[in-house]
Amino acid sequence: MAHVVRDPDYEARVRASFARQKFMATLGARLESVAPGEVIITLSFRDDLVQQHGFMHAGALTSVVDSACGYAALTLMEPGAAVLAVEFKVNLMAPASGTEFRAVGRVVRAGRTLTVCAGEFRSIGKERDTVVALMQGTMMAVRDKQLTD
Amino acid sequence: MAHVVRDPDYEARVRASFARQKFMATLGARLESVAPGEVIITLSFRDDLVQQHGFMHAGALTSVVDSACGYAALTLMEPGAAVLAVEFKVNLMAPASGTEFRAVGRVVRAGRTLTVCAGEFRSIGKERDTVVALMQGTMMAVRDKQLTD
Amino acid sequence: MAHVVRDPDYEARVRASFARQKFMATLGARLESVAPGEVIITLSFRDDLVQQHGFMHAGALTSVVDSACGYAALTLMEPGAAVLAVEFKVNLMAPASGTEFRAVGRVVRAGRTLTVCAGEFRSIGKERDTVVALMQGTMMAVRDKQLTD
Amino acid sequence: MAHVVRDPDYEARVRASFARQKFMATLGARLESVAPGEVIITLSFRDDLVQQHGFMHAGALTSVVDSACGYAALTLMEPGAAVLAVEFKVNLMAPASGTEFRAVGRVVRAGRTLTVCAGEFRSIGKERDTVVALMQGTMMAVRDKQLTD
Repeated sequence: MAHVVRDPDYEARVRASFARQKFMATLGARLESVAPGEVIITLSFRDDLVQQHGFMHAGALTSVVDSACGYAALTLMEPGAAVLAVEFKVNLMAPASGTEFRAVGRVVRAGRTLTVCAGEFRSIGKERDTVVALMQGTMMAVRDKQLTD
Repeated sequence: MAHVVRDPDYEARVRASFARQKFMATLGARLESVAPGEVIITLSFRDDLVQQHGFMHAGALTSVVDSACGYAALTLMEPGAAVLAVEFKVNLMAPASGTEFRAVGRVVRAGRTLTVCAGEFRSIGKERDTVVALMQGTMMAVRDKQLTD
Repeated sequence: MAHVVRDPDYEARVRASFARQKFMATLGARLESVAPGEVIITLSFRDDLVQQHGFMHAGALTSVVDSACGYAALTLMEPGAAVLAVEFKVNLMAPASGTEFRAVGRVVRAGRTLTVCAGEFRSIGKERDTVVALMQGTMMAVRDKQLTD
Repeated sequence: MAHVVRDPDYEARVRASFARQKFMATLGARLESVAPGEVIITLSFRDDLVQQHGFMHAGALTSVVDSACGYAALTLMEPGAAVLAVEFKVNLMAPASGTEFRAVGRVVRAGRTLTVCAGEFRSIGKERDTVVALMQGTMMAVRDKQLTD
């Protein structure tokens, strides 16, 4: 699946849009890398992001995987298109324990309107990572609204 | 679908557990109501919860719908069981614009181990609400771990 | 959610398209009713549609709920548009036992391109139905291809 | 993710259970391979399995990917456990055109009760395959019912 880049400035565009997602700053999420069809966001454990058992809340990790998937889709869109999430599904496979996390969003298939993405939320371990959650979702290129990315 | 309550103190239990979900406080989410098989959480627009176009981030709204669904499931569990999200799927139907929002989580089927829930995230309007997102997910009763709710 | 009908011949159109879905005939599925935003398909137990424990296969019931949801979406599309499934999620809540079943597909939100649907697969009982499975999915109006419905 | 085999006869067990899934015979599906955590099922185009535009019906392909995922989960279960699908989500990425298809089901995480699987439905091409659909789902080991696999 070789990806076609339609906007040579895709990285700057993703970074600028990410900077406008104030919720990412609220979570302390950082944009680690931007490549055609793949975006990685990192997150650190914070006590104010937990659910009732002290693990990171499923919604917090979904937020960063959703952003990673959305921006992975945006890397392949032409200038002028904006990205919106249509739907996503998340399977939670292990408690989100640990101190550092990595959300990876990848494009599985980029269509003109819809892009299918696969995402992972990993707890970074000394020896190996643990996959905490898996996302499968759909992103949409919006061209007819007053939205830009 | 008449629900069977196994813990007469279900409301106090849900309220205590919600209070331990520090991520809910971070989002400014409030537990509005707790009934057998139905929990409602409210949320207000805040500029630090938005995505790049100024709407509430899909992850922020997913977080409160997930908590509403999880606690709806917990209202029907016996004392001692803890609740964990297994998976959820969210369809985003409209931009999350507005100033006040309501997340409703309802139990569709409560099994001994797994509970299927349906959730909605609504933007509260003067005349009528707009359904922003729809969730369909699975919650699990955990009995064999050192988890309590 | 009052639905807007854009094709006064929506019922004939859905019935003609359903008749071309040869897989529905293979399953013995019948189109019971077609209303704006809601389509019902019935199915009878057949021994050649079962999984290994003798219940109706999850794929068989998904097939009819998918068709019910797709055609519910089509009832609201303008003449000339064709419908395709983008994605669906199914929660299986009870074994599909029984002799007669009903799949209900309903439009939750109809957009110009994407329509969100909710579906149910019910086992029809003497006193009450049992909801066997729940679907939440997305249908797409296709206008630029050589597809018609 | 090295998988642990708990039943040395896993292949015979999967093959015997598959043979009882009469719906697979109805679809003409064949069990191609059974390995720990991975099962492949093949399917051929048949005119009686199509939707209204002449492509294979999404429900037909979901059926074989669901069986592939379920049996992938069963390869890792101990003797005596039966497998049931809890939920699955399918993204349809391309029309299911072609003459030969392959459904691959893989275990992503095997837990004591729940197993998360990833599935693909591929149209086999001369030079390369086309991924038609992607599944992410949950399978359950059932031990307390009168079900066996």
